[in-house]
Amino acid sequence: MTSPETAEPGASESAGGDASVPDRIAVLGTGMVGTSVALAAGAAGMSVGGWDVAPDVLQRASDMSPLSPAGSPEEAVGDAQVVFVCVPLDRIADLVGLALGAAKDAAVTDVGSVKASVCRAVSAAAAPGEPGAGARFVGGHPMAGSERSGPEAAAATLLDGTTWVLTPGHETDADALAAVRSCVAAFGARALLMDPAAHDRAVALVSHLPQVVSSVLMAFAAGEWESEEGVDALALAAGGFRDLTRLAGSSPELWEGILRANAPAVRDELDRFIVALQRVRVALEAGDGSALAGMLERARDARRGLATKPQVRSGVVVLHVPIPDRPGALARLTGAMAEGAVNIEDLQIVHAADGGRGNAHVTVAADRGEDALAVLREAGFAPVRLA
Amino acid sequence: MTSPETAEPGASESAGGDASVPDRIAVLGTGMVGTSVALAAGAAGMSVGGWDVAPDVLQRASDMSPLSPAGSPEEAVGDAQVVFVCVPLDRIADLVGLALGAAKDAAVTDVGSVKASVCRAVSAAAAPGEPGAGARFVGGHPMAGSERSGPEAAAATLLDGTTWVLTPGHETDADALAAVRSCVAAFGARALLMDPAAHDRAVALVSHLPQVVSSVLMAFAAGEWESEEGVDALALAAGGFRDLTRLAGSSPELWEGILRANAPAVRDELDRFIVALQRVRVALEAGDGSALAGMLERARDARRGLATKPQVRSGVVVLHVPIPDRPGALARLTGAMAEGAVNIEDLQIVHAADGGRGNAHVTVAADRGEDALAVLREAGFAPVRLA
Repeated sequence: MTSPETAEPGASESAGGDASVPDRIAVLGTGMVGTSVALAAGAAGMSVGGWDVAPDVLQRASDMSPLSPAGSPEEAVGDAQVVFVCVPLDRIADLVGLALGAAKDAAVTDVGSVKASVCRAVSAAAAPGEPGAGARFVGGHPMAGSERSGPEAAAATLLDGTTWVLTPGHETDADALAAVRSCVAAFGARALLMDPAAHDRAVALVSHLPQVVSSVLMAFAAGEWESEEGVDALALAAGGFRDLTRLAGSSPELWEGILRANAPAVRDELDRFIVALQRVRVALEAGDGSALAGMLERARDARRGLATKPQVRSGVVVLHVPIPDRPGALARLTGAMAEGAVNIEDLQIVHAADGGRGNAHVTVAADRGEDALAVLREAGFAPVRLA
Repeated sequence: MTSPETAEPGASESAGGDASVPDRIAVLGTGMVGTSVALAAGAAGMSVGGWDVAPDVLQRASDMSPLSPAGSPEEAVGDAQVVFVCVPLDRIADLVGLALGAAKDAAVTDVGSVKASVCRAVSAAAAPGEPGAGARFVGGHPMAGSERSGPEAAAATLLDGTTWVLTPGHETDADALAAVRSCVAAFGARALLMDPAAHDRAVALVSHLPQVVSSVLMAFAAGEWESEEGVDALALAAGGFRDLTRLAGSSPELWEGILRANAPAVRDELDRFIVALQRVRVALEAGDGSALAGMLERARDARRGLATKPQVRSGVVVLHVPIPDRPGALARLTGAMAEGAVNIEDLQIVHAADGGRGNAHVTVAADRGEDALAVLREAGFAPVRLA
C-alpha cells in the first residue's frame, strides 16, 4: 500500500529510478498529449503501441512518432507495462477499464485535467470480473498547457521539464505507481504526488479560475458599452488588457468539458475570488486607500515571488526597449543579448494601440540588468529599466 | 465653442494640422511622460521649457532631452503656446491653474489617467481673477502605459503611435483645442476626442478593472491554500496564470491613486464584472454546459477580433516552438524569421513550471503562417501551429 506523499522537488526522479524503467508502453488516444508521450517514450528507448478512435489521427500520429498503430485498443496495449490513456475526460474511465482488463499486469494512467471524478469513475467501473484491478490505475496530469490539439501539436519537449501530477489512492498498487513514476522521470518530467481532490482544488485555482476570469473579462468588455460618441472602449485597450485576455482565445469545447468536470472546485474558487473582489469594491466605496494599497502591495510582492524560473527567484528586472515594427528588429535585439551572453527570461511585445510601432519588454535576472542595458545600448537600442 | 466629437481613426491628425503647429511648449513635471513629451517636441523642432518640483528630476530630464530647465513653473511656461502638465493626479488642478494664470494666451493640457475629476477641479480652481481662463484647458490622456516612472523611462517613441484621448468640454476654446491637437499630431499620436466621464468609464473597463482583477487574483492565489500534503498550488501555475498576473507587478502607489480618483467608474465596472462571474457560477452549479460554452465562444471570438494590430485584423496564427533555455536560442529564432522576412507580431516565452526549459509562442499574420513554419524548420526548430 502506498500513501500519497509529496515528492521533494528533484527527489522524485531518483525515487522513481528505484524501479526498473519500463521498456514497453502503450498510448490510447494519439492527440497532442498522447503523441507527445509516444515521442518522449521513443526518445527514452521504449517501444510504443498506439490506438485512436479516429483512424486518420492514429495515422498522423504514427507518421510523426515511433508509435506502432494497432487496430484496436486491446491490440495496442498488448504486452505493455504502462498504458497511457490520453482521451477526453468523458471517455477516460471506459478506456482505463478496457486497458486494465486487456493488459493484466500493466499499470494504467491517464492525463486528464481533472482527477477526483476520473478516479471515482475508474474505481466504480474498472475491469469487470476482476475486483482489485483498479489498484493498477494511477491518475495523472502533466501540467503542459492545454490550448492546443492534434498530433501535429505534439512534441517530446512538451513534457520535458513539466510538473506531472500523479494521484495514487490508498489502494494503489506500489509497483504500478513505481512503473508510472519511472516513465514520467524518463520523459524528463517531475512527478508530484497529490490527493485527487487536492489536485482538483489546485488547478481550479491556478488554471480553471484564470481561464474563467480571462474569458469573462473578454466577453464582458466586448459587450459592455460604447460611449455616447460611439467610441468602442476597446480602442483604448493596451498591453495589460491583452495579457489578461490571452487565455480567452482557448478552445471553448475543451474548456466547457474541464469546467463541468471540476465544477464544484471551480465554483468554490470563484465564490472566494468574488468575495476578494467585493472587498476591493468596499474599499473603493469607502475611499479606503490603505486597504487598496495593502492589496496592491501583497499582489506586487507575490508576483515578484512568482519568478520566471526558480534559478532567478532572486529577482528579475524588466527593460523597455522601443523597436521598429519590421522583420529583423527583434533579431537584432535578441542577437545582441546572445552575443553579450545575457539570457532573456521573458519577452513581451507591446504594440501601440493603433499598431505599426512597438516596444519590447525584456525580462532578465536582476544581476544581469546592467549587462543587458549595456549590451542593448551598444547595439543601438535605447533600453530603459522599468521602475 | 467646440463640441466634443469623435475623431475618425486617422482623420484627427489632418484636422489638427489645420492650425499652425506650435513651436514653443512647456512641460510642468518632468517624469516619464513629461520628459517623453519634451523628447517628442524636440524631435518635432519645438523649443521646450520645463520645471519639476524636484530639482534633481528636472536636472536628469534636461540632461537627456532638449528641455530648458526653469527655476519656477511661471518661468517655465514663459511664452509657451501649449503647456503640458505632467504631474500626479492630486497636483494637476493647482498647476493647471498656475499655468493658465502665468501664460495668458497658452493652451494648457494634462496627461492624468482620470479625467472627470481633473476637469471639474480645473473649472472650480482655474486662474483666480480671470473668469473664463478655464476655457484654455483641454484634458488629455495618452494611452501609453503607466507602470514606469522617472525621466530615465522616457522615450519619444513612448507617445509615437499611441491613442491620445482629449476631453474638451462645451466651454473649451476652439483655438486651444486646435493647438493641443497640433502638438499631439506632431508627436505622432492619434487624438481621440471623448467626454471626460466617457473616458473614465472606458479606462475603468479596459485598464483599471484589469489591474484590479490581476492584483486580486495574484494576492488571492498567494494567500489561498496549501493542500494537506503541503503542496503550494502555485507550484502548478503555468503560462496562463503568469499572463493574468503580470499587471499585478505594477506600482501600488500609482494604482492606489488612480483607483481612488476613478472609484465610482471602477466600482460600477467591478459590480458588472462580478455579475458576469456570478452568471458563470450559476451555470457551473446547474451543470449548464451550453451557457458555459456560449460564454467561452463569445470570449474566444472577441479575443480573435482584438488583433495585435489593425493591419493583421484578418487574423493571426500562433506557432509553438520548443527552445532550449540559454542565451542565443531566441536570437536564432528571431534571426531566422528576419532572414525569411516574416514579421513577428507577438512573442511569448512560456517556461516549464520548474524552469530550465521553455517554449516560445510566436504570433504571425495568418497569411504568413506557412512561411513562418518553413523558415523555422529550415533553421532547425520544430515549430507546431496551435489549433
